[in-house]
Amino acid sequence: MQQHSGYAALTRARGILFGADYNPEQWTPDVWREDIDLMRRARVNVATVGVFSWARLEPREGERDFAWLDEVLDLLHDGGIAVDLATPTASPPPWLGVTYPETLPVDRDGVRLVAGSRNQFAPTSAVYRERARAITADLVERYATHPAVQMWHVGNEFGQLDFGDEAARAFRDWLRARYESVAALNEAWGTAVWSQLYGDFDEIVPPRRMPYLVNPAQNLDFRRFTSDAVLECYRDLRDTIRAGGATQPITTNFMGLFEHVDYRSWAADVDVIADDQYPDHAAPTCAADTALVQDLMRSLGGGQPWLLMEQAVSATSWRDHNLPKTPAQARLDSLQAVARGADGICFFQWRQSRFGAERFHSALVPHAGPDTEVFEGVCRQGEDLQKLAPLVGSRVEEPVAVIFDWPSWWAASEPARPTVGIDSVAQLKSWYRALHARGLSAAVVGSDADLTGYQAVLVPHGYILDEAAVANLESAARAGARVVIGPFSSVADTNGTVLTGRSPALLRHLIGASGEEWVGLPSAGAKVTTASGWNVPGEHYAHTFAEKLRADGADVLVAFAAGPWDGRPVVTRRACGAGEFWYVAAMVDDALLDAVIGAGVDGIGAPVTALPEGVEAVRRGDALFLLNHTDSDVAVELRAPAQDLLTGERCAGHVTVAAQDARVLMEGLNS
Amino acid sequence: MQQHSGYAALTRARGILFGADYNPEQWTPDVWREDIDLMRRARVNVATVGVFSWARLEPREGERDFAWLDEVLDLLHDGGIAVDLATPTASPPPWLGVTYPETLPVDRDGVRLVAGSRNQFAPTSAVYRERARAITADLVERYATHPAVQMWHVGNEFGQLDFGDEAARAFRDWLRARYESVAALNEAWGTAVWSQLYGDFDEIVPPRRMPYLVNPAQNLDFRRFTSDAVLECYRDLRDTIRAGGATQPITTNFMGLFEHVDYRSWAADVDVIADDQYPDHAAPTCAADTALVQDLMRSLGGGQPWLLMEQAVSATSWRDHNLPKTPAQARLDSLQAVARGADGICFFQWRQSRFGAERFHSALVPHAGPDTEVFEGVCRQGEDLQKLAPLVGSRVEEPVAVIFDWPSWWAASEPARPTVGIDSVAQLKSWYRALHARGLSAAVVGSDADLTGYQAVLVPHGYILDEAAVANLESAARAGARVVIGPFSSVADTNGTVLTGRSPALLRHLIGASGEEWVGLPSAGAKVTTASGWNVPGEHYAHTFAEKLRADGADVLVAFAAGPWDGRPVVTRRACGAGEFWYVAAMVDDALLDAVIGAGVDGIGAPVTALPEGVEAVRRGDALFLLNHTDSDVAVELRAPAQDLLTGERCAGHVTVAAQDARVLMEGLNS
Amino acid sequence: MQQHSGYAALTRARGILFGADYNPEQWTPDVWREDIDLMRRARVNVATVGVFSWARLEPREGERDFAWLDEVLDLLHDGGIAVDLATPTASPPPWLGVTYPETLPVDRDGVRLVAGSRNQFAPTSAVYRERARAITADLVERYATHPAVQMWHVGNEFGQLDFGDEAARAFRDWLRARYESVAALNEAWGTAVWSQLYGDFDEIVPPRRMPYLVNPAQNLDFRRFTSDAVLECYRDLRDTIRAGGATQPITTNFMGLFEHVDYRSWAADVDVIADDQYPDHAAPTCAADTALVQDLMRSLGGGQPWLLMEQAVSATSWRDHNLPKTPAQARLDSLQAVARGADGICFFQWRQSRFGAERFHSALVPHAGPDTEVFEGVCRQGEDLQKLAPLVGSRVEEPVAVIFDWPSWWAASEPARPTVGIDSVAQLKSWYRALHARGLSAAVVGSDADLTGYQAVLVPHGYILDEAAVANLESAARAGARVVIGPFSSVADTNGTVLTGRSPALLRHLIGASGEEWVGLPSAGAKVTTASGWNVPGEHYAHTFAEKLRADGADVLVAFAAGPWDGRPVVTRRACGAGEFWYVAAMVDDALLDAVIGAGVDGIGAPVTALPEGVEAVRRGDALFLLNHTDSDVAVELRAPAQDLLTGERCAGHVTVAAQDARVLMEGLNS
Repeated sequence: MQQHSGYAALTRARGILFGADYNPEQWTPDVWREDIDLMRRARVNVATVGVFSWARLEPREGERDFAWLDEVLDLLHDGGIAVDLATPTASPPPWLGVTYPETLPVDRDGVRLVAGSRNQFAPTSAVYRERARAITADLVERYATHPAVQMWHVGNEFGQLDFGDEAARAFRDWLRARYESVAALNEAWGTAVWSQLYGDFDEIVPPRRMPYLVNPAQNLDFRRFTSDAVLECYRDLRDTIRAGGATQPITTNFMGLFEHVDYRSWAADVDVIADDQYPDHAAPTCAADTALVQDLMRSLGGGQPWLLMEQAVSATSWRDHNLPKTPAQARLDSLQAVARGADGICFFQWRQSRFGAERFHSALVPHAGPDTEVFEGVCRQGEDLQKLAPLVGSRVEEPVAVIFDWPSWWAASEPARPTVGIDSVAQLKSWYRALHARGLSAAVVGSDADLTGYQAVLVPHGYILDEAAVANLESAARAGARVVIGPFSSVADTNGTVLTGRSPALLRHLIGASGEEWVGLPSAGAKVTTASGWNVPGEHYAHTFAEKLRADGADVLVAFAAGPWDGRPVVTRRACGAGEFWYVAAMVDDALLDAVIGAGVDGIGAPVTALPEGVEAVRRGDALFLLNHTDSDVAVELRAPAQDLLTGERCAGHVTVAAQDARVLMEGLNS
Repeated sequence: MQQHSGYAALTRARGILFGADYNPEQWTPDVWREDIDLMRRARVNVATVGVFSWARLEPREGERDFAWLDEVLDLLHDGGIAVDLATPTASPPPWLGVTYPETLPVDRDGVRLVAGSRNQFAPTSAVYRERARAITADLVERYATHPAVQMWHVGNEFGQLDFGDEAARAFRDWLRARYESVAALNEAWGTAVWSQLYGDFDEIVPPRRMPYLVNPAQNLDFRRFTSDAVLECYRDLRDTIRAGGATQPITTNFMGLFEHVDYRSWAADVDVIADDQYPDHAAPTCAADTALVQDLMRSLGGGQPWLLMEQAVSATSWRDHNLPKTPAQARLDSLQAVARGADGICFFQWRQSRFGAERFHSALVPHAGPDTEVFEGVCRQGEDLQKLAPLVGSRVEEPVAVIFDWPSWWAASEPARPTVGIDSVAQLKSWYRALHARGLSAAVVGSDADLTGYQAVLVPHGYILDEAAVANLESAARAGARVVIGPFSSVADTNGTVLTGRSPALLRHLIGASGEEWVGLPSAGAKVTTASGWNVPGEHYAHTFAEKLRADGADVLVAFAAGPWDGRPVVTRRACGAGEFWYVAAMVDDALLDAVIGAGVDGIGAPVTALPEGVEAVRRGDALFLLNHTDSDVAVELRAPAQDLLTGERCAGHVTVAAQDARVLMEGLNS
Repeated sequence: MQQHSGYAALTRARGILFGADYNPEQWTPDVWREDIDLMRRARVNVATVGVFSWARLEPREGERDFAWLDEVLDLLHDGGIAVDLATPTASPPPWLGVTYPETLPVDRDGVRLVAGSRNQFAPTSAVYRERARAITADLVERYATHPAVQMWHVGNEFGQLDFGDEAARAFRDWLRARYESVAALNEAWGTAVWSQLYGDFDEIVPPRRMPYLVNPAQNLDFRRFTSDAVLECYRDLRDTIRAGGATQPITTNFMGLFEHVDYRSWAADVDVIADDQYPDHAAPTCAADTALVQDLMRSLGGGQPWLLMEQAVSATSWRDHNLPKTPAQARLDSLQAVARGADGICFFQWRQSRFGAERFHSALVPHAGPDTEVFEGVCRQGEDLQKLAPLVGSRVEEPVAVIFDWPSWWAASEPARPTVGIDSVAQLKSWYRALHARGLSAAVVGSDADLTGYQAVLVPHGYILDEAAVANLESAARAGARVVIGPFSSVADTNGTVLTGRSPALLRHLIGASGEEWVGLPSAGAKVTTASGWNVPGEHYAHTFAEKLRADGADVLVAFAAGPWDGRPVVTRRACGAGEFWYVAAMVDDALLDAVIGAGVDGIGAPVTALPEGVEAVRRGDALFLLNHTDSDVAVELRAPAQDLLTGERCAGHVTVAAQDARVLMEGLNS
């Protein structure tokens, strides 16, 4: 992806972007003026406007009311605040569904969903699409050259499912384009099973409620279709904006490891990667899980700076139980995003709503007003982020590549598999944690990515790896990388059809081992031991899932130590050119997994020699970020003297990082 | 509510009412005769007849068959048993739904429910309403002057939900009446959020299945509408009965803290409060929870005697696991109701059904017949209740007021709140338990009730308190009451719109403290300590939910003792006129809550000095009820000598109350 | 049931059948040829073909494509493999539902299910039935005399539910036939409850979604109707096959204790009992539970040899977590089936699918191919089963009868019962385990079965026992049997109407005790003691459910030892003729239940004196099977010398049975 120059220009001009969704429709004009004052006090420099304004802009079919928005944009511009102007298309006005029921989505059970919430649109509805383009065209015509508008924001958190009749027709067209002949579809879907052979594309319906398990290939293609259908919605409006003469960057907000959209297939269509991140600090793995998503987002943009489009400054409200962030935690979350390549830090939302389903979601200005710890923390963040302007545009050091493909995740999630206990994203997270604990950042890329230069390549769950992907991994290994591959890999082709022959089918010649059965393990787990010469302290075990492997030339580093599989390999290693292939044939305990990944990345220089538990280290440009996620102060030994961008303090030897605080150490500036 | 004189006249004439639902349709006439004999043996003096008789009375559209009912009423009358005659409208005959599908309710998913169970009617269906009036009019015409008929019973356990098209039209009419203009509705519902602005009332639908979270104000109004819609059903038939010339009291059976109906808005329309109570003795809080409901029911009727319309004599059958009551427990349950103001004790049902979905629900005459412990217990109850005739019409002493409003509960239950762990009814119950343990009964009243004369006012969860309610609380405090208010109070206005400014918005000046964030607490809870000078033994903690408070003049009695909120107030106290405001800003452990409520009610004379655990004390008229809910005999020290109405025994000093037994001690009679 | 002679002829000719479902549609002809070779290598002698071939045989409405099947049948025949030829009717092609939506089933919620899975047919659809007959007729015409075809297989795992309009009409017809008049239906269904009286059969609908609990009698009849409706589907095609001139045995595959079909009402219509068995080895009761189902299947066929139609050779894939079988476990499972009367051992499926919802279900030829432990194990099984040919046609010794009726199970499962904790099948299993642990096999028969000659009769849960059944039990007792009856028995008549009078209504005069209430027990359970003279080591308790009993002449063997029921009987015994009636009035702990059953079967000679835990003993014909389900070798003392059919080894005294291995000891052969 070649990033649109507008985003870089904007951040060069303004420094780190800092702002929020701003929904002036919910407030009176006198509040707007107070908002601008408070934004300035907090050093806010960007606001996303209009995300849910359709009903306000078009209160009745065909009418337009832009006057209020004129005023809002002018006020923001006068306040020096750039605007990320949204198409209001994520939530149509109630009249649309009343007048055109076919614009409403239908769920898997055949129930047509109604207005009263948001997102009640069918992505393939011709009427919805036409109306969305029309309101967007008018918006662009009016504001394309408004000086406040520095970015365009299409829709919101795309991901709408629809199983209705118009979706069915679109699904068939999509399938015709993909397969050309119904015979090819029958082959790809394996419709010979259970008498599902289609005589014509017109016989096909979305995977609605069925008597029993759905054909997994049908489901997989419906996921692809859904991702593409909402991408078409996005493109429609992106093209409408460009056709209207707008020159600013255009994007939409992603949702991290969101299930229903393959963001990798979207990345080329957005001018800057923007993401919504709502980590749950109740989870002990929160910091690492967030780092993973941030590495993924940066990687979607080819390593270029991205934009944290939404996060909560304190509590969310859509969880069953919503923990607040302390102001310190909120600031640390923002600094973590900058560390991992964000050049913009935004929030949902500016002023907390008084009504609607998000009334208890925290905001920069809480219900209680600006005289609050929350708003004080916001001001502090604004001040601190301003100090990080020197980092704008810089790149994050990422010595490791981690492979993750949405379609592989989807296919591996289809029902009727060896165990529900193996989950691509859970695998991805558990593998990534071992990197995070070592201060190693990663490019989280697709299996077709250029792997040149990575010292290690991790494939936590390569359920689908096509021949090109396998060749890609082999090239990386031959060039010197250690390629570490997780269990249940090279299982299926791109249709989800299981590859026959010993497993992992396309990899077995590379890993020097092969398997013959994928199975669930007994709930007690299965004891394993490391081979002589390699010791990982403690007792170890495989759990949940394993592949019945035999070594065909590989070294066996870990093996089953009891039971019917006694002696069978669990972890193998085989040289390949200048590098190695490692295979992990089972889910194993955390300590053993950490040791395996640790061995895989051995020798890769981390930014800090000994990273205390709970501390995150990231090198971005000339800066070393040390982020202390614990509730205690910690000391970290530096490799070189440095100066803290936040405090101006000069540091050498051991530096203290306070609890829930961060250091941004510039080695180049120190002397 | 001015109680209809008929109920008082009936109880004056007959003493405590004792009886059951009687469903003669399920039995042959020879069984009817045996029933009358057994009722007389058990001293039954009232029977509710005809609740589910529609299909028998109108077997085909427009036909009438009253002959069997003539005979039943004559038999009951000859047996000296008064009849509470029911409109048969709770369960229409199957033909109604077949001929007029629009009379069938539609659920949230759009599924039209069918006959085969009960309650399959749409409350707003014009056809249903017309047919219900017609059968009722004919019933009244025939029986208004039948000497057996002493009361009328409309429908059964009203509470039917309906999301169908006729309900949608009625909902719109209801909204038009409430808001007059759609602009006012848009303001009240906060439809500026998520692009929900309505251009016309006709665009509004009930909260059917939606893509995401429903607008909470829409849901709240749909709850109000539903309660009103079924109230209209009730009024329709109540008016039909009166129009037919009936002079007896008219009522329907409530269901305690039932979610779907605001009984307070109903109370003025029933001539006597009647309630169905099915306590689960598997719950350790059973006795207190039941007492709370009974105090609520008495309070709905302004303190006048009420009627326990249904209870189980042994096991229910609709729970997953149904514990029986021993005959002693069943008797104690009845005595508890009398203690708390009931002048009538009825059961579901007289004779246990052989078929249908309630075939395993206990009844006064079990499947096994009268030669059973159950029926022996029934006879004993009949005998004992007869002895309580002197209490008829007397009032229960209730020195404390407890505030509870249905709309506040509803609004506080809407999704996307700080935590699902805070629940208005659970709060209400936990606060009430502290009263119950002290032998203090309460008026459980709305926030608009006259609070004159109460020494303490508890507001366990005043999520919505309007300005009048707050003024009401202030008046009570100024007059000397201690007003103790629980967490998450004064959050929203009557539409559920969150009040801005520091919290609790309308109360902060009264409590002398103010907050800025409502949050979920970490699962481990948060340590708290009492301020010096006040000691509650043991370690204490807040859990689940807290408000980030600061004292603005109030005394801090309990404060956080660690973590980010270290030192912030948890319990505050501030003088107000002759009284005080207490605020409890978090959910706290049971012992601390008990101590706080205990301090709040300190100095209010309980009927007994030292009440043993598990013993309930209630003063009604001249009687002191001591109810021993434990499995051991206990001794209770009396303040004055007294005579036991049940045994005739004269008691002074320490009186023994046997396990699962009760004393009804008349102080006036002793000497 | 008089078994069709063809199955016996086939097994006499071929020995134990050994094979699998074979789905050649999923593979190319070159794979077919490899399949035949591998089948021969594994000694496979039967294959079920065509179960899911409809779309392949009739790719467009009215077309036929038999050529591929011609080739497959010829290949199999040339390979010496007999064919069990299936009607392809379990899964219609997609075009059927597209062209005739009325052929698609509608679920309880009114949702019409779509194609994309399998089984999407409405059993009562006239169009579906006509098309199913048509394709079957053509299949029979073509292959009735094909020499490969040795058996016919109708549909697959019948059990489709349907609540649609055509089902409603068929349900009404079924009810008309059952009740003749709507008055009789009203009486049987107890429609006097809740105003459900029907004026005409046409008012009745299936038990679709309702506002509250369904009439249990309506539900019970809908279950009967559903079982009959799918039986009609079966009979349709069975008759079509016979009408086409086929002379081979015809059957379909049952599913053990499957909820939706009363297999006992089907047994007369199949020429050989065939069953699918997928035990979960994760359950510690797996071996006993499987033995129970096998005894049931054998009993459905009147003790004649049956056919294990489907099982997994390793892991299933439809469970959340699927444990594999080791080859030893898989072989032991097969031997267990032969021990319990199977003369054929088949699997799902021959070659593991690459696609579709069963792609991870194990098969005889795994994805990895024949060079696997799985296929090696298959070959070993083929070899071993061949050695068991001498057992073909022989009978299993079954000294005990166990009573189990589907309608009783159904009625006892209806909602709103004393506790969900009592479950007919769970009771059946827990009682059966006590037999299994003693090496006693059972005839698992209906309450109307001939009980002559059984030394003990167990009735774990006789919720419905009609008068004939009770007379049957009495005859058995008079003739010398011990009849042991479990709690909650003789509760209802055949409509599910509860019998009045003391319980168990029809049994109380026989058991010498009577009850008056059925109740859930507190979660802590209730202490019980054995009467003097009978000692069962340890503390004992009743739990979950009990009947409030008094002895009316019976000996009390176990009684409650505390609480309100202190002293009431739990287990009673009363002589009756040469035998006895035992009644167990509560659910009791496992050790006490085992002791009670043990006493009930005392004196019945088990095949082995002291059976080690985890070892199963079955006597079939002249063979004693010893099946070691544990992971350790065990020694078993033989009563007589014998020769092992599998190894040829001669054994006497103590014989070792290896872990997960079996002995098949022929006493007659040893000398």
